[in-house]
Amino acid sequence: MFYVIGLGLCDEKDITVRGLEAVRKCSRIYLEAYTSILLVDKEKLESFYGKPIITAYRETVETESDEILRNAKEEDVALLVVGDPFGATTHTDMLLRARELGVPTTVIHNASIMNAVGACGLQLYNFGQTVSLPFYTDSWKPDSWYDRVVENVEKGMHTLVLLDIKVREQSEENMARGRKIYEPPRYMNPVTAVSQILESEIIRAASASSEEPKIHGYLKPESTLAIALSRVGSPDKQRIVCGTLQQLSELTEDDFGEPLFSLVIVGKRLHELEVQYSEAWAVDKAEWARVAKEVYGARLDS
Amino acid sequence: MFYVIGLGLCDEKDITVRGLEAVRKCSRIYLEAYTSILLVDKEKLESFYGKPIITAYRETVETESDEILRNAKEEDVALLVVGDPFGATTHTDMLLRARELGVPTTVIHNASIMNAVGACGLQLYNFGQTVSLPFYTDSWKPDSWYDRVVENVEKGMHTLVLLDIKVREQSEENMARGRKIYEPPRYMNPVTAVSQILESEIIRAASASSEEPKIHGYLKPESTLAIALSRVGSPDKQRIVCGTLQQLSELTEDDFGEPLFSLVIVGKRLHELEVQYSEAWAVDKAEWARVAKEVYGARLDS
Repeated sequence: MFYVIGLGLCDEKDITVRGLEAVRKCSRIYLEAYTSILLVDKEKLESFYGKPIITAYRETVETESDEILRNAKEEDVALLVVGDPFGATTHTDMLLRARELGVPTTVIHNASIMNAVGACGLQLYNFGQTVSLPFYTDSWKPDSWYDRVVENVEKGMHTLVLLDIKVREQSEENMARGRKIYEPPRYMNPVTAVSQILESEIIRAASASSEEPKIHGYLKPESTLAIALSRVGSPDKQRIVCGTLQQLSELTEDDFGEPLFSLVIVGKRLHELEVQYSEAWAVDKAEWARVAKEVYGARLDS
Repeated sequence: MFYVIGLGLCDEKDITVRGLEAVRKCSRIYLEAYTSILLVDKEKLESFYGKPIITAYRETVETESDEILRNAKEEDVALLVVGDPFGATTHTDMLLRARELGVPTTVIHNASIMNAVGACGLQLYNFGQTVSLPFYTDSWKPDSWYDRVVENVEKGMHTLVLLDIKVREQSEENMARGRKIYEPPRYMNPVTAVSQILESEIIRAASASSEEPKIHGYLKPESTLAIALSRVGSPDKQRIVCGTLQQLSELTEDDFGEPLFSLVIVGKRLHELEVQYSEAWAVDKAEWARVAKEVYGARLDS
């Protein structure tokens, strides 16, 4: 049996009882270690499971899927995945490959940011499509995410913005010399995310013409509400901060807690209960309520 | 401490290790029993936790929240919730109330249909807003969900359709006489769901005029792909069936497995990997691939 097991959000205790029982009977256990990051060391997982774990980097999962699946018709093999197993296309690929090989598969679900984002107080059914915000460089600022956000904004939906992480990056020099030396992991902080969003907003606005008036003005700094989340689901380190994009852009990295981060751009279909719940984390509660009421049209009593 | 603990999708083993540890130290444990249904008896949960459980119906949670929160500054009290704690607004209400009373709270996340729907092979980030399909009656066919689906369809997004459940319903007679006798629970089957969807499609089409050409034709039976899911996450009872709405409408209730059910209306932004993965459950594989290619424009090799 080939198990793909979601580990949930934070540490070794976020696995489900069903998942833990499956792991403990597996003869080989791989930990997928590039589409997301668990906030706990591999050693801690190993001691909790009482089993050794093989770290599977992108190159392993994508090129050595048959090695992972080796003998899985007879043995129990597990691929552990941060969040839920269907959070990344690579795991779907692996399950397809197992199906081709006639290996039976079991998926064990868990929380992922795709549903745990509800912690910010916005209702999940009002979220539209999810976007990923990549790190910009001086010469490369891919902003196709902006079009997706506009589609959501036009219909009043909230947008979950997944912030880039860079794991096992090689410097240009090391890559040129073929040295497998990797840079320390980088996690996009909400400060960078908001700054990139506002940069793209300015670029879009500048390129707007009378024929295409619609391509700018969707994410105005003073009138767009956003919520930054860090370490969602952590019993002691979860932090949520919300305000207008302008307000968030004036904070420092330390204000947002520790990685991993995500960001929500609040859509216009905003219920008063959502405003009230998230208000607890507002940079400025009065301004949060004012924009929610005057710009978003939320029916607040006060 | 007031804990709101997600139980996940199916049975007693879907709780997380963190959740289980919390439950076991609580002095009062409530099981929320109306926004969704766990596929296991309360007794089985009690024996697994080694603790008695109080079933909390809608009237309890909404009117007696202060009883649930009684003494929760000193004691540990848990509200157990099927899926993830933020799946229903009632739990947000309870957390707000706890906050007002100065009771510290901890939320323990888990899988819910909102992320586990990825099991059907469609990528979660391509889902738009989620809709709920209520049971129609002869005189009441509320179809505001149709407008939400159209918003998703226009942008190529997939739509998760949550199918109605009726728990603790009273017959008109019993209600009139004030008798607290409840009908057996009802779960909407995909057969009913598809039939209601096609009914609304016809009503919308009939009411269409040249001024409003857009309000119909979004969910044509022969060219709209859909995926029905039952018991997602169950190790042995999960069933997925997919095809055009027309094909699904020709099946019987038994073809879809056991409750709970949900349905996905497939959006046009459909990747070949998604088609390939879900094809395994198609009523007719060739037709599934043909519609995906010719109507949806998925780039399939064959």
